[in-house]
Amino acid sequence: MRTVTVETRVRVELVDVTRHLQEELAASGVRSGVLVAYVPHTTAGVTINENADPSVRRDLITALGRLVPEDLPFTHAEGNADAHVKASLLGSGVTVPVEHGRLLLGTWQGVYLGEFDGPRRRQLLISVLADGGR
Amino acid sequence: MRTVTVETRVRVELVDVTRHLQEELAASGVRSGVLVAYVPHTTAGVTINENADPSVRRDLITALGRLVPEDLPFTHAEGNADAHVKASLLGSGVTVPVEHGRLLLGTWQGVYLGEFDGPRRRQLLISVLADGGR
Amino acid sequence: MRTVTVETRVRVELVDVTRHLQEELAASGVRSGVLVAYVPHTTAGVTINENADPSVRRDLITALGRLVPEDLPFTHAEGNADAHVKASLLGSGVTVPVEHGRLLLGTWQGVYLGEFDGPRRRQLLISVLADGGR
Repeated sequence: MRTVTVETRVRVELVDVTRHLQEELAASGVRSGVLVAYVPHTTAGVTINENADPSVRRDLITALGRLVPEDLPFTHAEGNADAHVKASLLGSGVTVPVEHGRLLLGTWQGVYLGEFDGPRRRQLLISVLADGGR
Repeated sequence: MRTVTVETRVRVELVDVTRHLQEELAASGVRSGVLVAYVPHTTAGVTINENADPSVRRDLITALGRLVPEDLPFTHAEGNADAHVKASLLGSGVTVPVEHGRLLLGTWQGVYLGEFDGPRRRQLLISVLADGGR
Repeated sequence: MRTVTVETRVRVELVDVTRHLQEELAASGVRSGVLVAYVPHTTAGVTINENADPSVRRDLITALGRLVPEDLPFTHAEGNADAHVKASLLGSGVTVPVEHGRLLLGTWQGVYLGEFDGPRRRQLLISVLADGGR
């Protein structure tokens, strides 16, 4: 298990963390199994989406902002209830298959930490599980 | 693998199931790996969110109700189509890293069964996977 | 690890892939652990929902279409930004517990590949992890 620190810079952004996963996979020596990337936070999440055109990340942020506006009739006093909701919509982690020592991400896939209440210092936990060498 | 029964009390609620996960982890004896919590239901889900201020759970329920109103032009005859959609938005399970025999939940994280068509008797399945003792 | 090819037929649909998971589980010989089903795509996802009444799938498609309309003020030039957002809302994969060599899906649960920018040829990756024979 490895913990990576990610410094986010604005209130809402998607930070590419793919290379951290690749580094931990290489360090683990696991050839076949799965990798789990997880955020121990309640106003951030993890998602997989396009790694090429940055407009996709912008559009995902736009769509989430429209789905969960900051000014809904929320009761949470800290003013970041929208961030908690977005975290649950994205999910706290992803599980990616591994084979031949490589993450089986698609050609266009990157792994992103979704920051919804930044800027903050975030942790990303990365675990690798072997499948028994099949 | 352990199955926990959760009795929900109203149509929509988030039930804290964190201690069940901790108990199963302790019983498993696994020191390092991941824990998977899963609901075998189609109108309930599992999510991770804040464990301190209960207003966050209320706000999550409010936001999901606004995203998926009961009175959308649904075709499913049982009148609980909104519950099925909410289940897919949250997801059927979560995977949490384990190290030193502890769930690596963040300080403010709890694990919640999302009930969207209660009250019902629900099952929660908990599996623990060791990572080979690294 | 096994890769299954799924040919989708329309722009948006939910394709039942449950039997592919059952076949790969049987081929793996694993009796106890988890199965991971994953799509290496950014305009498709995986979800678990009702396998009986097809109206539930129709309603899920309707609700996602209402949550993320095609004509939002998106910037991604390919015209499929809505598909990318839906992929992140559903998630790229699911993890299902296994015991006695069986997927522990609920009676009414099926596993679906969510196509949001079809018709296309999609890949579904299926990994099985043993939990050490507990």
